[in-house]
Amino acid sequence: MRGFGMISVDQVGWLHHDRPLCGLLDAIVRPTLVAPCTSDVRVSHGWAGARGDIILGHEAVGIVDEVGPLVTQFKPGDLVAVPCVTPDWLSAGVQHGRRVSHDTGEQASYKFASAKDGVMAEYFHVNHADANLALVPSDVTPEAALMAVDMMPTGLRGAEAAEINFGDTVVVIGIGPVGLMAIAGAVLRGAGRVIAVGTRPVAVAVARHYGASEVISYREGPLSDRLSDVDRVIVAGGDVATLVQAVTITRAGGIVSNINFYGASEIMSLPMSRWGLGMADVDIRGSFCPGGGESVRAMLALISAGRIDPTRLITHWLSGWESVPQAFALMDSKPADLIKPVVALDER
Amino acid sequence: MRGFGMISVDQVGWLHHDRPLCGLLDAIVRPTLVAPCTSDVRVSHGWAGARGDIILGHEAVGIVDEVGPLVTQFKPGDLVAVPCVTPDWLSAGVQHGRRVSHDTGEQASYKFASAKDGVMAEYFHVNHADANLALVPSDVTPEAALMAVDMMPTGLRGAEAAEINFGDTVVVIGIGPVGLMAIAGAVLRGAGRVIAVGTRPVAVAVARHYGASEVISYREGPLSDRLSDVDRVIVAGGDVATLVQAVTITRAGGIVSNINFYGASEIMSLPMSRWGLGMADVDIRGSFCPGGGESVRAMLALISAGRIDPTRLITHWLSGWESVPQAFALMDSKPADLIKPVVALDER
Amino acid sequence: MRGFGMISVDQVGWLHHDRPLCGLLDAIVRPTLVAPCTSDVRVSHGWAGARGDIILGHEAVGIVDEVGPLVTQFKPGDLVAVPCVTPDWLSAGVQHGRRVSHDTGEQASYKFASAKDGVMAEYFHVNHADANLALVPSDVTPEAALMAVDMMPTGLRGAEAAEINFGDTVVVIGIGPVGLMAIAGAVLRGAGRVIAVGTRPVAVAVARHYGASEVISYREGPLSDRLSDVDRVIVAGGDVATLVQAVTITRAGGIVSNINFYGASEIMSLPMSRWGLGMADVDIRGSFCPGGGESVRAMLALISAGRIDPTRLITHWLSGWESVPQAFALMDSKPADLIKPVVALDER
Amino acid sequence: MRGFGMISVDQVGWLHHDRPLCGLLDAIVRPTLVAPCTSDVRVSHGWAGARGDIILGHEAVGIVDEVGPLVTQFKPGDLVAVPCVTPDWLSAGVQHGRRVSHDTGEQASYKFASAKDGVMAEYFHVNHADANLALVPSDVTPEAALMAVDMMPTGLRGAEAAEINFGDTVVVIGIGPVGLMAIAGAVLRGAGRVIAVGTRPVAVAVARHYGASEVISYREGPLSDRLSDVDRVIVAGGDVATLVQAVTITRAGGIVSNINFYGASEIMSLPMSRWGLGMADVDIRGSFCPGGGESVRAMLALISAGRIDPTRLITHWLSGWESVPQAFALMDSKPADLIKPVVALDER
Repeated sequence: MRGFGMISVDQVGWLHHDRPLCGLLDAIVRPTLVAPCTSDVRVSHGWAGARGDIILGHEAVGIVDEVGPLVTQFKPGDLVAVPCVTPDWLSAGVQHGRRVSHDTGEQASYKFASAKDGVMAEYFHVNHADANLALVPSDVTPEAALMAVDMMPTGLRGAEAAEINFGDTVVVIGIGPVGLMAIAGAVLRGAGRVIAVGTRPVAVAVARHYGASEVISYREGPLSDRLSDVDRVIVAGGDVATLVQAVTITRAGGIVSNINFYGASEIMSLPMSRWGLGMADVDIRGSFCPGGGESVRAMLALISAGRIDPTRLITHWLSGWESVPQAFALMDSKPADLIKPVVALDER
Repeated sequence: MRGFGMISVDQVGWLHHDRPLCGLLDAIVRPTLVAPCTSDVRVSHGWAGARGDIILGHEAVGIVDEVGPLVTQFKPGDLVAVPCVTPDWLSAGVQHGRRVSHDTGEQASYKFASAKDGVMAEYFHVNHADANLALVPSDVTPEAALMAVDMMPTGLRGAEAAEINFGDTVVVIGIGPVGLMAIAGAVLRGAGRVIAVGTRPVAVAVARHYGASEVISYREGPLSDRLSDVDRVIVAGGDVATLVQAVTITRAGGIVSNINFYGASEIMSLPMSRWGLGMADVDIRGSFCPGGGESVRAMLALISAGRIDPTRLITHWLSGWESVPQAFALMDSKPADLIKPVVALDER
Repeated sequence: MRGFGMISVDQVGWLHHDRPLCGLLDAIVRPTLVAPCTSDVRVSHGWAGARGDIILGHEAVGIVDEVGPLVTQFKPGDLVAVPCVTPDWLSAGVQHGRRVSHDTGEQASYKFASAKDGVMAEYFHVNHADANLALVPSDVTPEAALMAVDMMPTGLRGAEAAEINFGDTVVVIGIGPVGLMAIAGAVLRGAGRVIAVGTRPVAVAVARHYGASEVISYREGPLSDRLSDVDRVIVAGGDVATLVQAVTITRAGGIVSNINFYGASEIMSLPMSRWGLGMADVDIRGSFCPGGGESVRAMLALISAGRIDPTRLITHWLSGWESVPQAFALMDSKPADLIKPVVALDER
Repeated sequence: MRGFGMISVDQVGWLHHDRPLCGLLDAIVRPTLVAPCTSDVRVSHGWAGARGDIILGHEAVGIVDEVGPLVTQFKPGDLVAVPCVTPDWLSAGVQHGRRVSHDTGEQASYKFASAKDGVMAEYFHVNHADANLALVPSDVTPEAALMAVDMMPTGLRGAEAAEINFGDTVVVIGIGPVGLMAIAGAVLRGAGRVIAVGTRPVAVAVARHYGASEVISYREGPLSDRLSDVDRVIVAGGDVATLVQAVTITRAGGIVSNINFYGASEIMSLPMSRWGLGMADVDIRGSFCPGGGESVRAMLALISAGRIDPTRLITHWLSGWESVPQAFALMDSKPADLIKPVVALDER
């Protein structure tokens, strides 16, 4: 079968791999909608280390094509949303919610385009199908469901980890699709004023839609010149200097909640004076998308209830397998009018 | 000075008391807006025990008339919202957030119309003014601020204590003003589907405005015939049988969050079979309005940011001291079109 | 094969069932040590409803006899401790720690002597072996490990759910084996003074060993005559009247943590005046043993580090299959010198 | 009156200041026992910036000499323990436990030797006496109570912020007095194996007494060569490189809890690869001693119940005002046999 992936660092293209085998507890899914993610782009450029001959992609909605004989909750033909993080739920580490995204090691629950081929293929494999798939309900569109597999749960996880109190002032740094979902998530955890940091006009408008009280630019000098003593900061963009800025502007007793993905070679230089000499009661948290079917179902429940419409993220619709490379290139070049591209795959 | 209060059980009317004295840390406030509360009515009927010759009322916005010499944050002329619960912040019990509403004993932080005269008077007394008053900001109307002193913080506390996860199905029983705020609060803690229980058309419409997905009636048989396995239940109305119903419909691992006020003679009969024989991991919580200036400021921040408009609760505007008894009578008789009456007091 | 079980309500004896079949993810274990539990006795008397022809027992340490082909962490010959609660970890409900003990319904993760035969048999079946077994480490004795499958995790769960703050006064009602472990658990969550409630001399001595500051008797009148305003109460014995007493003596802002098992016909009559008219900020929690291999491993880590020696619970050692009925009868009659009997089964 | 303090950076000696004035809510205390703290030494060397002509010291037990007229819970002659952190409890920031140690700004609740003279004086001032003093109960020795004002609450706060689960492996870096209390605290939050990092023989023995399973040296190469995947790390010593090591050895989903005091000029260089590229779900927390009378009372309750004997920290007893400089010099030079010196002041 055909898939779009990483041939080697900085080189992407079509790969031809065997259709994956379906284990006893697993499913094979045929994607109908996929979206490339900034982290696919970063991985293709070597952020997670050298890697090659692997199909990329971890955001898909599709049709179940095959299930293992021990799968009881899903059957071929079901329309499903597939979380980008699919833990091995029989691994002891995930029990009691302790390290769901890190089943047998750091980020090990993230398997697509890492431990195995990703979803930008004619067929892809899902481990522990009963626990890792979510049916798309009839009142949720497939494209909304597609946003529920990574953009929404990652952004909302950033808000959740920020432990927002009612009325808190929350700064969200970065208004890419995850940052935008963090804005929506902050509002749905009780934030008062939400200050978003970003510049691209297309995203600024959507940030306001999701509840940003104001949007400021990082281009006009360090955030710490303009903000201080904020209750919570969610970091969804930038680099290690941004993270230091986030710590700097947080009040004593506040929380910095990071959901940004840094490069393996980045080093944060945090002056202890910015962190209250170690005694500011400021937590610095770095979260990963939680994963699993239940996590996606929570997002679908929010969409179904009208709490969030994540389709506002979708700025570009492409169609057919041939357009997958173009969607990927869009995510890499990030033209001014792009937030998130979606590819509708061939009907067969 | 004149005040409207409880002469004895079941008898309300005008009382003439001395203007309260202002302690060193205290303030005297002249109310400009007051609202009677269902709990005033209940107290007047003896729910909290025999009591007499006491001015009622605990919801007010007003002008600071006098401050003690140790008060540094407020001055005469300030427009302030006064929390219904005003803890003694030097009492050890409130430290570290342990029992804020219960400073020196159960509900002892609730002082209006309990330990001292309430707010339906020409002047009323506020202990620990620096810690217990909140300035009304210029972008919040006085009537919105009035809703921020009890209705909002009590309703939102019900949602907070429910520890809602994103996407949870939440049932809110009771759609009086506190229940309506609990609906809004549930949405602002991440609820998916919110099922409100109530019947009065005026309140049903407002429930939908605040985010209820549907509104069902308690008149069509026990809730447990129609609902089961819900994630969270917030109880903001009814009696002890309602509370048993709430426990019954909650899933294993769920939470029942009570913010309703029961009579001292009510006895709940909870069959252990409804509570998983004690092993259902269902928490039954009963919260009180948290109190203090910071708590009100959190509500004002939500209003200011446009997250909640609590003025949708106000169905009746009355004017002048002479209408205070009428407002109280409205709250007692609860006509079909009433949610919350507000009295604008004489300008002087 | 032979097993000791419930023939019908109030009638126990030997049953002859087929050796259980081992599923692909499962294990078959041959017990070497078993202990009857009060809840086995209660079930045999119909507390959980009519039931018959089922092997009892849910506390065992044993040797793995067979594993399914998908099991990777265990092999025949391994000495394992088996949690009394063995969730289906592929059930969505258990994800993120939400309802671990209630996988597909209330207490449904409790499978022994409920959904299938229990452990007092020559062989017993364990679902999801990789996730539900725990190796007994070389520095933990088998009998200590046996206490780690129900008595310890249930007692410690009671302490954990009580959310004890450093220095809190904690009352533990009931000094059977679970209550004794709750005492030890309260100390290991930071309790200051621990007041145990019980009378049997053998248990009183062990209560003091585990850290009870004092032990008082429930025979000398209601607890509420002698205790009030306590921070936390853990209920590990008694009946619904005991639970009402627990609520009564808890301070505003406190927590009642129940780990007792009530009969399906018991009804708690809780006067609302004892619960602050619903507004005391007192939580009433009812927990179940959490379950799973990781939960048992946590207990084994405590034993291994010398934090708790649970073998102080063991007052009676019996030997051989023939003594199983006697051990069960002991648990039913509870002679004065009994805390917990253990049966060492035939070497083969 | 006389006091021992900081004349200028790197210069300490006797100062003669007026006896402090007692405000309406305050107390003046005459110390009977004081202990110098490493942070006094660090402040004297300019870690917290240039400062001079200020009396040092923030650990004292003493006799109340005078109280303001609004103080109701204490009277002259009372033997009290005085927390090192004494918040302004009428400051809105401390409400609901939000930023207790940071009332009006970062660490602003820490007032001794910062906003005003410290406790190594004939008399010292305590703001909000009712809320910030704790009576020494008759069953706690004064020297034990002295350890309850900073060493215990800071060490135990480190353990509390680590949110230890039962059985967790906890590394405590640094075995000075605060680190030793963190060891004891980790045990009292449920730690399994506790690995302490330190070298001084006198402290190693006490570390074992408080529950360290083993003590390793930081001199034998980086911790990350010997430890990995630990559940929790409490940092109570070292420098910014130590903090990076702490992050490195923590498992995904773990917590690093810092209670160490860094210099204003230190800069932590944290490679993002050590922090899971921002996605390891590892929290980095930096806490300050919580403060207030209730916090000290919690410690006294633990001592009284026999859960911790903090007097094991005291290696040196000195006597009389004349020995204060010697005690301070000991804390500065840290001879091999020192953990904590205590000075018994002149009886008068």
